[in-house]
Order: sequence, then C-alpha cells, then structure tokens
Amino acid sequence: MTVHETAIGIDPQGGRPVIPSRGDRRPLGLGEVSLLDGFWARLQAINCAATFEHCERWMERLGWLANFDRVADGATGPDRPGWSFSDSEVYKLIEAMSWEYARTGDRALDDGVRRLTARVGRAQDPDGYLNTYYGHAGQDPRYSDLEMGHELYCVGHLLQAAVARLRTAGADELVQIARRAADHVCEIFGAEGNQGLCGHPEIEVGLAELGRALEEERYLAQARLFLDRRGHGALQETPLGRAYFQDDVPIRDAETWRGHAVRALYLTAAAVDVAVEQGDDELLAAIERQWENAVARRTYITGGMGSRHQDEGFGDDWELPPDRAYSETCAGIASVMVAWRLYLATGRVRYADLIERTLFNVIAVSPRADGRAFFYANPLHQRTAGGAPDDDAVSPRAESGARAAWFDVSCCPTNVARTLATWQAYACTVGERDLTLLQYAGMSIDAELGDGRAIRVDLETAYPQDGVVTVRVVHAPAGAVALRLRVPSWADGAVLEEGGRLGRVEPGLAVVDRQLTSGEEIRLRLPIQPRFTWPDRRVDAVRGCVAVERGPLVMCVESVDLPEGIELDDVQIDADAPLTVRDQAVLARGLVAPQIATGSGWPYAAGGRPREGAGSAVELILRPYHQWAERGPSAMRVWLPDATASRR
Amino acid sequence: MTVHETAIGIDPQGGRPVIPSRGDRRPLGLGEVSLLDGFWARLQAINCAATFEHCERWMERLGWLANFDRVADGATGPDRPGWSFSDSEVYKLIEAMSWEYARTGDRALDDGVRRLTARVGRAQDPDGYLNTYYGHAGQDPRYSDLEMGHELYCVGHLLQAAVARLRTAGADELVQIARRAADHVCEIFGAEGNQGLCGHPEIEVGLAELGRALEEERYLAQARLFLDRRGHGALQETPLGRAYFQDDVPIRDAETWRGHAVRALYLTAAAVDVAVEQGDDELLAAIERQWENAVARRTYITGGMGSRHQDEGFGDDWELPPDRAYSETCAGIASVMVAWRLYLATGRVRYADLIERTLFNVIAVSPRADGRAFFYANPLHQRTAGGAPDDDAVSPRAESGARAAWFDVSCCPTNVARTLATWQAYACTVGERDLTLLQYAGMSIDAELGDGRAIRVDLETAYPQDGVVTVRVVHAPAGAVALRLRVPSWADGAVLEEGGRLGRVEPGLAVVDRQLTSGEEIRLRLPIQPRFTWPDRRVDAVRGCVAVERGPLVMCVESVDLPEGIELDDVQIDADAPLTVRDQAVLARGLVAPQIATGSGWPYAAGGRPREGAGSAVELILRPYHQWAERGPSAMRVWLPDATASRR
Repeated sequence: MTVHETAIGIDPQGGRPVIPSRGDRRPLGLGEVSLLDGFWARLQAINCAATFEHCERWMERLGWLANFDRVADGATGPDRPGWSFSDSEVYKLIEAMSWEYARTGDRALDDGVRRLTARVGRAQDPDGYLNTYYGHAGQDPRYSDLEMGHELYCVGHLLQAAVARLRTAGADELVQIARRAADHVCEIFGAEGNQGLCGHPEIEVGLAELGRALEEERYLAQARLFLDRRGHGALQETPLGRAYFQDDVPIRDAETWRGHAVRALYLTAAAVDVAVEQGDDELLAAIERQWENAVARRTYITGGMGSRHQDEGFGDDWELPPDRAYSETCAGIASVMVAWRLYLATGRVRYADLIERTLFNVIAVSPRADGRAFFYANPLHQRTAGGAPDDDAVSPRAESGARAAWFDVSCCPTNVARTLATWQAYACTVGERDLTLLQYAGMSIDAELGDGRAIRVDLETAYPQDGVVTVRVVHAPAGAVALRLRVPSWADGAVLEEGGRLGRVEPGLAVVDRQLTSGEEIRLRLPIQPRFTWPDRRVDAVRGCVAVERGPLVMCVESVDLPEGIELDDVQIDADAPLTVRDQAVLARGLVAPQIATGSGWPYAAGGRPREGAGSAVELILRPYHQWAERGPSAMRVWLPDATASRR
Repeated sequence: MTVHETAIGIDPQGGRPVIPSRGDRRPLGLGEVSLLDGFWARLQAINCAATFEHCERWMERLGWLANFDRVADGATGPDRPGWSFSDSEVYKLIEAMSWEYARTGDRALDDGVRRLTARVGRAQDPDGYLNTYYGHAGQDPRYSDLEMGHELYCVGHLLQAAVARLRTAGADELVQIARRAADHVCEIFGAEGNQGLCGHPEIEVGLAELGRALEEERYLAQARLFLDRRGHGALQETPLGRAYFQDDVPIRDAETWRGHAVRALYLTAAAVDVAVEQGDDELLAAIERQWENAVARRTYITGGMGSRHQDEGFGDDWELPPDRAYSETCAGIASVMVAWRLYLATGRVRYADLIERTLFNVIAVSPRADGRAFFYANPLHQRTAGGAPDDDAVSPRAESGARAAWFDVSCCPTNVARTLATWQAYACTVGERDLTLLQYAGMSIDAELGDGRAIRVDLETAYPQDGVVTVRVVHAPAGAVALRLRVPSWADGAVLEEGGRLGRVEPGLAVVDRQLTSGEEIRLRLPIQPRFTWPDRRVDAVRGCVAVERGPLVMCVESVDLPEGIELDDVQIDADAPLTVRDQAVLARGLVAPQIATGSGWPYAAGGRPREGAGSAVELILRPYHQWAERGPSAMRVWLPDATASRR
C-alpha cells in the first residue's frame, strides 16, 4: 500500500456518493449541509436509531452475516441461507453506517463498520474474489450463473460502500477489500477476458464511482466495457426475456426503460457516470431521451416506477395500474440516483423535481414510523385491508397491505437506510458563483463556491407542511452571488420576497443574483394549498379518476378514515367542491354511491350506462400517501373516481 | 382381468366426459348429437385436420414423447426435456383423439391412440407408477415435490383420457394402464398412507370420473380424501402462498375462488362430482356460492378468469385489468368443466350462459384459423401490436400479441383439442320427459328421453351470425314432451314461434310442453343486434369505458381496422350513436381525440380536468374478439373509452 493510496479519496466536503470529475455543478457534501429539523431530519434520526440495528439483527438472525464466517472458516456447503445476493445487504448497511458516521461522528457507527468489515474481509479469497454463495466447497463454481447469480452485483454494492468509507474515513480495510475485489473483476472480465456481464447491473455504478474516488481509470474503463457489452445478447435468455436485464438493446440505442426497473435504473446511473467522465455526449443524450420517455409514460404520480409484479418491471407505455403497481422502493431509490446524476450533468431542474416527488412519495413511504418495518412495493390502491403484520416473520412476498419487518428478498430496508443517511447530498449544489437550493428543509449550509468564496445560509421552513422557506444569509461573500431556489413544477403562483420586493416566480429556478448582505432574509412562498390532479387520458387504469396533491405530497384516502359502514369502493370525490386543510389532512367533498346489490350476479350490463343515485355526501379525509397503513392495515386509494366527470 | 372389466364402461350414447350417477338431467352423448355445420363444426374440423397432428409433431420434436421411451428403455437421466407436467400433454392429446374417433370413426385416430398408448404403457412401472420425470435413474425420487412436481396431476389427465377411451372403445390397454395408475395412487395416498396431495389439482377429477365409468367406489373415495385434505396446510408454503394451490382454506369453507385459476377450477370440478355422487348438498352449495361470487366480481366480460400474470391467478374482487388480463385458455376450459357439472347438478340455466360466453370468447379465441397456433393468455387490451410470430419457435411466455405454435408450458393446445372434440357433449340434456337445448348450432339430435321415448330434432341456424334457430321435429314421440330452449341472459326481446303462435320469451328457458308433431318447426328468434355493455363501477380498470357485444360475441377494435395515422390510444366510441352491422362486423361512431403533444413530459396535470377538443369522427369497425390477431399482429381493445360519459 503506497502513501498515495492511504491519502487519496477523503472528501474535504464530508463525503458524497457522487462526485463527477467534470461539469459545472458541484454537489455539496455531508460536511457542508446540516439538517436541523423537520421531515427528513426525523426520518434520518429514526433511520440511525432503529433501522441500522434492525437490519443487522435480521441479517444475523437469518445467517446472512454468518455466511461470511463460514467462507472464512472453510465451512461452506450447499445449505447456505439466503439468496445469492444477500451479501449485498451487508454492504448497503455498511454504506449507510459509513455516511451516518460521517455526519454525526457517532463512534458506535464507526465500530459497527469496522466490525462488519472484519467479517467481510475474512471471507475474501486471496485473488480478490468475494462472494459467500459461489466458489467454495459445496457451492456452484464462480461465475457459473451470470444471468441470475448476482456475484458482480454484490461486488458493486461493496464498491459503493467502500466509496462511502474512503470519502469519509480514508482508505481503511474496507477500501482495501474493495480494491482487491475490483481488481479481480477487471482481471477476469477485462477486454481480453470473460466477455460476460452480470444479469443485475450494479457493478458498473460501483466501479465508476470507486474509479473516480481512487482515480483509477481502469475501473471506469471496466464499467464502460460492461456497458458496451450489454444489449448484444451476452446473457442467456430466460423465461423473462432479454429485456428483463436490458440485454435486448444496446443502451445508447434504447428509446425508453424496460424490463426489471431496478436493473434498468442502476444501469442507467452508471451510464451517466461513464458518459460524464468520458465526455460521451451521445450516451448522455440517449439517457436523457430514455428518462423523458419513461417519465412521460411509465411513471406513477408518486414518482414510482415499475408497473408489473411478474418481473418487477416497467410495463408498456401507459400501463400504470394503481392496484397492481409494483413501484418498488428500490426502484424509487435508483430513480433518484439517475435523476441526481442527470441534474449534475445537465443542470436541468426537472430532474430535481422528480427527486423531490420520489423522496416524499416512494422512499418516505417505505419505512414505518418506528423504522422497523418497510414497504417493498408501493401500490396506489389497496383493495382490501388484509391482516395485521407479524413483525417476527420474514415476508415471503412483496405484497403491500402492510409494512413487513423483513423480506425473503430484502433489498429495500438497507437501500432505504443508505439513502436516508445521505439526504443532504441531494439537497444543494454550487457552481462557479452560484448556490442552488434544490430540496427544502430546516438546514444550515456552509459551502464554498466554485470561485473559492465561502457562503453560509440557514433555511427555516416547516416544509412540506408549510410552503414558506426562509433563507437567512449568515455569511455573505463579497461580490455578487447567484442564489438560486428551485420552484417545483407544481408550484403555480410561487412568490419570492427579497430585498424588500415581492415577485411572482415561475417553476424552474428563482434567482437572486446580486451582492447578498449577511443577516438578510430571502423568502420563497410555495403555494401548498391542495389541488386536484388529472391523469393523461391514455393512463387507462385511472380513467375517470382524480388525485389530490398538496405541495410535493400525493394524498390518499384510507378506509380507516371513512365513516362506519362506508366502503372505499363506494366513494367518489367531488372535484368541483373546494379542498380545505385541517391539521395535516386535506378535506374534500365525497359522494357515497348507494351500495350496488349483487343483482344479476354479472358485473356487465347492457341497456344504457348505469345511472347512479345522487349519492349521499360525506367528508373525505385525505392524508399524505407516505403515512398510509401507519394506523394498521387499511384499504387505500390515491386515485378517486371523479364524481364530476359527467358534469364536464 | 375379469370379463366384467372388459365389458364395463362403453357408453351406449357414444361417450361423454361427465356422467353423473345421480340427478334429473342426463347429458346427451356424442352419439346422440351430430354437428352439421357452422361455427363449431368448422373449429372441430380444423381441430381434427390440423391440431392433433400439430401437437403430436411438437411433442415428438421436443422429446416429450420420447421421455416415455427413455423410461421404458432404462435410459433416463437428469437432462430430461420438458417440464415435469409434459406427460399430461400426451394424455390430453390421447383424450382428444379418442373423443374424435368416437364421433367420426376415423381409423387413423384409433391407430394414433393405440400408437401413443403403447409408448405410454411401456413406461409404466410394475407397481402402476407412471411418470417420466420422477422416480427413475438420474431423477428425483417419486413424490419428492408434491407442491410443484405435478405427478398426480399427470395421472389425473391419464385417467380422463382413459375415461374417453373406456366409454367410446371399451377397456383397452389405455384403460388398464389407467386402472393400474389409479390403484397405485389409492394405495400410496389412501386413508392410512401418504397424507399429501398434489399441488395442482386434477387427480381428483380424473379419479372421480374413472370411478364413475368403472363403478369403482374407491376411486371416488380417494378423490374425496384428496378434497378433504386440502385447505389444512398439507403442502409446503411457497413464495406464491398457500392460496396458489387452494391449500389455504378447506373447499367447503371458501367464499370465492382464489390463487391459480386452473388449479382452483379443476379442483372445483372434482368437488361437484364428489358432491353429486355422495349427495353432499353442503359441498354443492359451497361451490355454487363460490361460483356466484367469482362470476360476479372476478370474471371478465369474455367469461375469462384469472387477472394476474404473476401466479396465473384470480386477483382481488374487481381487479380485472384488460391489458394484463391473464384469462388463460385453460382456465376458460376449466370454467366450462365446472359450469357444466353445476348445470347437470342443479339445472340452473345461467351455468349454460357462462359456458356459451366462455366457449365463444375464451376457447374459440385460442386456436388460429389454421389450428396450428394458439393463445395462452387472452387479454382484452393489447397495447402494442408487437412482432410477427415465428411458427418454428417455442414461445417462452404466455404473452399474447400473437398466437404461438407451441409454448414452453404448453397446456393450452392439447386442452383446446380435447374440448373442441367434445363440443356436442355440452349442447343438450334430457330429463324424464324433456329435451333441453343449451347451445345452438346446425345439428341433429337423436335421443332417448328419461322415460324411454325416442325423439329426433334437427336444428338449422347460422348462429351466432344470425339469431334465428329453427328446430325441426323429425320424430315426435307419442304424448307430451317438454322441448326447452335456452334463452341467453343477454337476449332481451327473444321471440318464440311455435304452433302458429309467436310470443316473447324471457331469458332462461323457453318451454314448449305439448304433443309435438313430426315435421313441425319451432323457431327461436334471438335478438343479435349489437349492443353496448357497461361495467359495474367497481371494475376500476375499465371505468369510463364501454364494450360492444353482439349475441354471445364480445367485439373488439383492432388497430389494423383503423384509418392510417390513427392510433388506438386516441379513439373513443360514441355510445349515443347507433351500432350497425356490415358483413359480420359492427360499425360504430368513433371520435378521434387530437394527439396529445408530450407537452410537459409529465402525464398528470392540475388546473382542471383536461378538456379535449370535440375530436374528428371516424367509423369504427368492431369484429368478434375471437377473430383478433388473425390478420397479423395488432393492437386491440374490447373496452373503449366512452365519449358520452360526460353527456350523462
């Protein structure tokens, strides 16, 4: 180990998951943004206080951690517990704890990282191969099932964990393990080597970032090799088809995302990294095109992606069923990874819009209030409340009537953990002479502009419960600065107060470009009165329905909020009546259609469109979607039949 | 083998798949009903001329037939081609050929049955066990995977094939093979034996009918044992849950069908058989209740069942997506099996209504016009036309943009074959003094009433293209006879002409109860002018849509019938405009909404329900759903957005 290797990589800004070498925007690091209070601070606190311990305990209980010990002790066999990708959960937990330690300095977290790292490291083979499912006594050989084996996928998560550690604590043992693993991958799968690739992308994004962090060009080159190999049928076809793992079309030729959503999005994140590092504008344009098409036609109002349970995949354009929405939590996380990289690469604010939507309406939905149970799939319509969950059981399926403590396939809890731990890293960027505020929360920003000037601002806000964001300039640099505030796409009628003036600002970026004064306050007023939102008519599954949103929050009706005896199936919403706010709930006028007697016993009738009675009025209570099922199992709807459809 | 055994079982009425020992209705046999011309005669001719050979050729090509030879020759190993249930396809083909031979007397079919039987018989183990996937050198042991192994399922299909042979040709070699296999099952899984059951029901219905055909009480008793064991967690839980194979709730306690649709329905068919044979009215009532609930809330307008691709299963109540409808062909066949048994048990004509709907709109959809390609799933909405099919390839998936020559899981082609070969057996019944006509086609009926009197009638009709059914009495028995004609539930305004009188008849049964006269004609006029049909408002996935039906046929719009440049996504139907018929198509007034520019790139908008321009009018051509995709790949919709929704 050279001195260079030990010194390299510590991030003076406190660590960030993504640091492009090129581009006009620098993401602020965890050391530059302090989250003070509010929505995300609360989730982050629970994440650290409960979720980390919860994940480690489950992985110990199920033997996923002991799998590393068994390899180290030469005690492997065919009866290994857990799926072939369970190693990756350990790596995601290490990553989460590493970021959290960087922000909080809590020694227990550092101890945890070291403890887990030691167990992982003992399992690494002398040549750098590291996997507890393959390649040892009683196991299938290495790389014998690239399609579904997840070996390189696991390494990818190891590398992301190592990036977290490297940038926050330096090149410790975890980084050395990761380097050996990455070197091994480059040796085996290099240009002259095995021409295969992993059925689940992730190695690419791991190699790209570790390459940036360690300034190892060949890691980036290997990521590029994997990207270029894909789409030419390198993988054996499975019953789910080649599109399942994006081996159907080369990435630069694809028009939209398809197949398994998490696979598609992890791959895309890596493609942005490689495109940026190598100045490959054609590849970047292809990704932007795919994003545009998928967001316009294959994305839920929540930001969720993935319409099918069968292959956890994107469906066709406009195939967006609310009840069978898969909208996997991990796909939401992966979508944020992609959008963040695209924002950094292009500066287009709509990527940050989708990040906000997804953070509030996919990622925040997953963890239960106590941080010890999670949604895996995130449907927009739950037909039946179902039974109460058993927190002591492993959920075999990603069904979502209630959050589950742990899953047979348990990718989401650790993914939520590492994402919440890095919320600050997606909040702001600086450019040569600008500070851009993309996400709002009570926080303090102490950053250095591209031109070297220091700036410090504090944000005060109760967002998203309130739309007022006050930016107090604590330290104004000398000379003009462009303070840029994202005005979300939904914020029609936003107002900016600054320098004694009050002016309407359009969605996009509200810019104050002048000499700032220490102590002055700039205030953005976002209109968070609730609003009705209608779907494009081609979203067949919610035709005739309307949703309610409030600020960045998608709202929903839960059966537990309906008066006794009223079924969710019988409720319509009056979109001509006003929406009001009481506490944090939105109140709407509902109409309860009379119960339909089963009648003929056949649910299709000729002789004219069935006329319904006027229906009795009922006050509908809509709560933020991210809170649903926190009061026990419940039936739920985001999209509500629009009682006014026939009036228009 | 005793003389009794060789003599027993030949059905003097020419063979029928279902002959209850009790009840007031006797199904007519294949020897009593001759199909002369029309819709079903054509399908039956193609079935015999093409499908049988097609199926045998594919099973030879893929080694599914040679699997029997390999067992016989002691040449088994772990590399056996085909799924564990491929034996059953051979049995279903034998069954189809047996019925067809009984109707037509074509010696080539008899030779085919004997040829296939010989190969099957050589593979039977001395103790009666017969399976080519388990239990031999290099294979997993017998009954080592009851959940997914399909061993007893395969035997069930063998027994059904043997029933066909027994009733049409006597107790030949196939029947002896089946008897040995059934005896083996009773020995192993009897009351004191292995308390397991098969993850895929089918053995039950096979045992029940072979028991009836051979008058072997213990086969029925074994079927009863399997039924009673189910629902108590006899099977190991899999990721699809216990409901997948109906092991979640005892069958007499269940309120509706759930889990894998074919499994649920095969099981139900057996339950009706057992209930009838044993006079178990409680069990029969439970099945009727389940039928009512599933038909009212879990059934497509086509009669199709099964809303989910993931587990080929029923979804929740009202979960009936048209685009992701699974509606497996085999589930339609199984639904006919259930409804037929329920009709025989109860005489309720609505079971025959569902049979007709399912025959025309699920089963008839499956085979391509040439009988050499099939739909497996039967969606009601195909979003994209997809590519042209390759008739030389095995389709890996049950996707349905086009019919496929063969499938990796190829249960549907042989199931269609055996069902079409027995269409006559579901057409009519006789009671003590009635002849009941349930399905209409050009046919000749030569039957014996329950009281022993002979009756002969000929039906002339171009149904379903025309609604007039003429019943010519060829031989009238002495004394009054009740001639009963089913008036379908959709036939509002049907008229019966008889004895010089003309009277309106209501859906249900139109009855002529008097002395008939040889040579007289009785005429039923069914109103087959096309009609609009609206869904129950709780079928969320088609809210705001309307379908068009004509007689028993569900109609659809295909993209190939749209004018150049018009997308199916942009078409609405004007349900206030008249429907007319030209050739066999229905013409409707369509409205083409202006193409929506991708606009904001986000498919959800606030600020009021999107108003659409008036739209230009277009003539919509609707064709019978069973014909779709016969002119190459096409986008298709059964449910069309109702342009008049906002006028009502």
